[in-house]
Amino acid sequence: MRRTLKAAILGSTGLVGIEYVRMLASHPYIKVGYLAGKGSVGKPYEEVVRWQTVGQVPREIADMEVKPTDPKLMDDVDIIFSPLPQGAAGPVEEEFAKHGFPVISNSPDHRFDPDVPLLIPEINPHTISLIDKQRERRDWRGFIVTTPLCTAQGAAIPLAPIYMNFRIDSSLITTIQSLSGAGYPGIPSLDVVDNVLPLGDNYDNKTVKEISRILSETKRMVNDDNNLSLGATTHRIATIHGHYEVIYVTFKEDVSVEKIIETLDSFRGEPQKLKLPTAPDKPILLTNQDARPQVYFDRWAGDPPGMSVVVGRLSQINRRTIRLVSVIHNTVRGAAGGGILAAELLVEKGYIDKR
Amino acid sequence: MRRTLKAAILGSTGLVGIEYVRMLASHPYIKVGYLAGKGSVGKPYEEVVRWQTVGQVPREIADMEVKPTDPKLMDDVDIIFSPLPQGAAGPVEEEFAKHGFPVISNSPDHRFDPDVPLLIPEINPHTISLIDKQRERRDWRGFIVTTPLCTAQGAAIPLAPIYMNFRIDSSLITTIQSLSGAGYPGIPSLDVVDNVLPLGDNYDNKTVKEISRILSETKRMVNDDNNLSLGATTHRIATIHGHYEVIYVTFKEDVSVEKIIETLDSFRGEPQKLKLPTAPDKPILLTNQDARPQVYFDRWAGDPPGMSVVVGRLSQINRRTIRLVSVIHNTVRGAAGGGILAAELLVEKGYIDKR
Amino acid sequence: MRRTLKAAILGSTGLVGIEYVRMLASHPYIKVGYLAGKGSVGKPYEEVVRWQTVGQVPREIADMEVKPTDPKLMDDVDIIFSPLPQGAAGPVEEEFAKHGFPVISNSPDHRFDPDVPLLIPEINPHTISLIDKQRERRDWRGFIVTTPLCTAQGAAIPLAPIYMNFRIDSSLITTIQSLSGAGYPGIPSLDVVDNVLPLGDNYDNKTVKEISRILSETKRMVNDDNNLSLGATTHRIATIHGHYEVIYVTFKEDVSVEKIIETLDSFRGEPQKLKLPTAPDKPILLTNQDARPQVYFDRWAGDPPGMSVVVGRLSQINRRTIRLVSVIHNTVRGAAGGGILAAELLVEKGYIDKR
Amino acid sequence: MRRTLKAAILGSTGLVGIEYVRMLASHPYIKVGYLAGKGSVGKPYEEVVRWQTVGQVPREIADMEVKPTDPKLMDDVDIIFSPLPQGAAGPVEEEFAKHGFPVISNSPDHRFDPDVPLLIPEINPHTISLIDKQRERRDWRGFIVTTPLCTAQGAAIPLAPIYMNFRIDSSLITTIQSLSGAGYPGIPSLDVVDNVLPLGDNYDNKTVKEISRILSETKRMVNDDNNLSLGATTHRIATIHGHYEVIYVTFKEDVSVEKIIETLDSFRGEPQKLKLPTAPDKPILLTNQDARPQVYFDRWAGDPPGMSVVVGRLSQINRRTIRLVSVIHNTVRGAAGGGILAAELLVEKGYIDKR
Repeated sequence: MRRTLKAAILGSTGLVGIEYVRMLASHPYIKVGYLAGKGSVGKPYEEVVRWQTVGQVPREIADMEVKPTDPKLMDDVDIIFSPLPQGAAGPVEEEFAKHGFPVISNSPDHRFDPDVPLLIPEINPHTISLIDKQRERRDWRGFIVTTPLCTAQGAAIPLAPIYMNFRIDSSLITTIQSLSGAGYPGIPSLDVVDNVLPLGDNYDNKTVKEISRILSETKRMVNDDNNLSLGATTHRIATIHGHYEVIYVTFKEDVSVEKIIETLDSFRGEPQKLKLPTAPDKPILLTNQDARPQVYFDRWAGDPPGMSVVVGRLSQINRRTIRLVSVIHNTVRGAAGGGILAAELLVEKGYIDKR
Repeated sequence: MRRTLKAAILGSTGLVGIEYVRMLASHPYIKVGYLAGKGSVGKPYEEVVRWQTVGQVPREIADMEVKPTDPKLMDDVDIIFSPLPQGAAGPVEEEFAKHGFPVISNSPDHRFDPDVPLLIPEINPHTISLIDKQRERRDWRGFIVTTPLCTAQGAAIPLAPIYMNFRIDSSLITTIQSLSGAGYPGIPSLDVVDNVLPLGDNYDNKTVKEISRILSETKRMVNDDNNLSLGATTHRIATIHGHYEVIYVTFKEDVSVEKIIETLDSFRGEPQKLKLPTAPDKPILLTNQDARPQVYFDRWAGDPPGMSVVVGRLSQINRRTIRLVSVIHNTVRGAAGGGILAAELLVEKGYIDKR
Repeated sequence: MRRTLKAAILGSTGLVGIEYVRMLASHPYIKVGYLAGKGSVGKPYEEVVRWQTVGQVPREIADMEVKPTDPKLMDDVDIIFSPLPQGAAGPVEEEFAKHGFPVISNSPDHRFDPDVPLLIPEINPHTISLIDKQRERRDWRGFIVTTPLCTAQGAAIPLAPIYMNFRIDSSLITTIQSLSGAGYPGIPSLDVVDNVLPLGDNYDNKTVKEISRILSETKRMVNDDNNLSLGATTHRIATIHGHYEVIYVTFKEDVSVEKIIETLDSFRGEPQKLKLPTAPDKPILLTNQDARPQVYFDRWAGDPPGMSVVVGRLSQINRRTIRLVSVIHNTVRGAAGGGILAAELLVEKGYIDKR
Repeated sequence: MRRTLKAAILGSTGLVGIEYVRMLASHPYIKVGYLAGKGSVGKPYEEVVRWQTVGQVPREIADMEVKPTDPKLMDDVDIIFSPLPQGAAGPVEEEFAKHGFPVISNSPDHRFDPDVPLLIPEINPHTISLIDKQRERRDWRGFIVTTPLCTAQGAAIPLAPIYMNFRIDSSLITTIQSLSGAGYPGIPSLDVVDNVLPLGDNYDNKTVKEISRILSETKRMVNDDNNLSLGATTHRIATIHGHYEVIYVTFKEDVSVEKIIETLDSFRGEPQKLKLPTAPDKPILLTNQDARPQVYFDRWAGDPPGMSVVVGRLSQINRRTIRLVSVIHNTVRGAAGGGILAAELLVEKGYIDKR
């Protein structure tokens, strides 16, 4: 039995913040000890939170006061979860690391620092060793670990086992994403009612860049040159949670869908081997139904709910090209759940302990 | 000035039927002379129609009685527009052709008869000569001409000029389609609210098959072997009109986006040369805005509204692969408008006249 | 500790059926023993069900086979839950009652039989004594108890305590209801996207009629003549679960909102006194926030989730008229949860036992 | 034939601004001469506008430059339409009035100034004489005339003819409003997808207050004391245009629905008598269909489209209470169209001329 670790959640009333609160309410050894916020400091959590997820505010959290985002007030906190928005996150996370805190960030600000892991625990767990380099170079006791953009995870999780085992030429992706990925207030309603909203070049490009980094950090079983070509076209529509992604993969040689299915179905990562509490039995759940996965019915897949990516519609387009579709819960696996799983891996590997 | 032709609209109260009624209300020489229906025979059109489009029921049509779908009652009708549903359409259309009527069908039933044109007037106008073969073989005075599935048109219209001028290796398509494409009652609301609904293999495959036939019938300017590989992944979401399609194109040699843009921008077809009344100036309208086209804002593009396909987001993925996005008004260009344009071409070419 | 009762769920794959399955999975003494269905007989439940609710199919249910709706196959079943559609339900429920089964019905077919209770356990629990009359008159060992239309419950639950304690002149109601109330496939998507769908006179009238019966069966603390006038205007929009109802109440004398709030806040019924397992602490949860209740955030209120009706926006319109708003989870409190609570009351009162 | 008047549209790229541009494109004597904006000054209109309405940017307007909101730049402008947002509108409108411009405002800022008309041309046309008082008191050559909140108009238009002819005790209103009423960006998507959003006390109250003022300014045919009691409960849902309002009316004596229908059906106002170009034949269009009006199908009713309010579902609740439902196009009749109609009345009455 591990000692209980106290977590602080920054941005705790936001759309990812609430998933941290919800998931940690039943966590075996990480408990919410500090709810940080901005506009709502001094008020009870339940009064100010917009609980846009399943269930209700956990009873033991409801009356907790929202407090300032200040490391000096967090003496008894062991771990920081930071789903802060882009721009705001960067300097705050650095300050926490300087104060000696382990920071798990869902924000983009440090995702491409060469000494900061961009971690999906099942896929590139060995990148946590960057922490040693980070501490040395930056001369701080704490550290920052980031998790990728939810959109990138929806593609990277199914692509990674394929990439580890096959020589891929290119992958062309189209996403149909949910509103919660943009936070609140986020997307104006008039942009998505009776509409499809393209997210534009910048969003497309960052998706590609993150997937590229993650794949390049996998342990490959094939002899290949790593020069994969990726394309992504990203959109939002009027769904609340869950990103839907159509992924075409073209290989450098002939491929069979059956082998790809085997590869995806048998995929397990370090979190499964270590039986981490937030690790689902299978990071990828395959469906062979013709009209699945669907956002409404599959976003909460796995145990804990929302931690498995559902993959289906596997189909051979031509001898070298296959098609697959994934549904990922963007604020769970793609953010808070991914952050908790990262924390568990870091605990297991000795990077986080009672302070 | 042409003599006025009288048109009968089969399924006139359906979602494509109403677009025929709306568009023909301002047509220079085709007038609605007969409104055929099923459940609503004997009632005034306005009373029974569900006018799920812009504007209102044209005054001169509002009180017209809906009548049976019977060629023997249509003595003074010169042309039949048939947006009947799959299965129902086939035999009815044959009966009308036997009775000597020119039938323009938006239904799938005869789309792959080898002697029936699958016509997009800008793209494969010469295929109307199949009518001669059809009349001979089937020994009927009338004829059937079909227009493709709206989804296929949304990809085929931008792909065709590219295919005519470049050697394409493959094209991988993802569609985000509107509800009206499925008719009424069509898609249950619980399938699309807070959801993405995959249309499944059958729909994917027919989309690919139709695009393949259309492209194979273009007049190509390049020396190529025609063995294009196509993939399509099709979906509906809660939009009312307008299909959104992401189209990746991989070429057999290096390509530049600029040349593709030029090709699309300068594309004109026979209808433009003949200045057919329902032909837009440009079948393809290019946008270079980062977040366009959008379904809500671009589905009614062109003049007549909804007859131009809006294409944008042209981007180089790698040296041989580009990405583009199209928005097509599925019940206008993709159905009724395409049917009227086909009729105009057939009139111009002498296949339809006062009976 | 009670003996475990085995329940059969008719229409078990429908939108109310799945809530029965979900809620009974954690019930202390009622277990799902038989899943009846129609189109899907012989198949495992998980394969055929459309799980349009929270969570996932309970593990112990997932592989259960769907079986025919036949009392002769249900020897070890103690209780029947019948959320069958109108028309189909009536004769089936009678057959089960004849075979000696207690039938809890969410269907309208028997709601106005004078010897059949129309039961909201907190409001008219004493009406279960009609069962004795029913058995005698119909000469069957089993019985039928109905629960009201979800829409009627959303108004009747807050109106009842007011009606018990005050002399009401009239109540004028407007509902904004969710799609799941109409079942699947239910409402066509084109009827509710970018629209408000009026449900029409018939639906308005049955809502009024059910509320009237329920209120007339309450135990009143005031001397009044019961001639309340009710009006209801009912609609559906594109929400998945949760009915929203605006309720204006005009009294026969001056009234203060404060007293109404007290009355609603202190309201408890027989299920609360008996501490029935599915009874929420408070059948009515009051909110004083200006923009609450909201469907998305309040439909799952209470414990068990969805069993409390959230009431808010209490406001004085004039000296004799107040306004309040309610949100009710239509398939939980308004159907399956109400059915289970009814069963618990009937068990407690000795009407249901191990057969 | 009138001389052409040049109009300036303030906030011309907003949701009401675009309806002014659209409607004036076919106006017989008011032409758009100046497009004022804020963020987009110096750019061509088509490039910066979000055309969230039917049709396309009129050709003659597309390239017009957006210019500053400055009366000194508008020498050749004869009339100002001001759909500016609350707070911003007030001082700007005063400045224009001081510079001698007639200002038609859709903003709330001056709606309750005692010398400013709150004008629905069919209902209280004689209130334009307040302009004389306004000019005198404020010592300016121009003037300000306001039009009511769209929500208030949706109830006031059908209530006014009833109020003129019958003694009303109270009216209790529930609205289901569209997103465009809140402008852009307006309502966050996460507030309305799968939800009903209450607008709160402030919005309810201003709706009541405006309806009260308008009704109090009608010319009544009955001897009554004017102390009508009103209540309103207001909401937004995910519809784009069109407000839906359920209106219960309780009279001081027995009433028959038939007489109310007659009253509404025969209602015509000053604009109809004067045959103003933007006046629909009937300000109120009655429907007797059970499931109408509906937002999607009725918001564009009348000629010009969107200028008639559709009223239906007339029903007797009890001897003194009836129910009716209205659909109003909030940005047309409820804003831009109402503003143009007001301008036409003012032209006709000599308040606006070529400057």
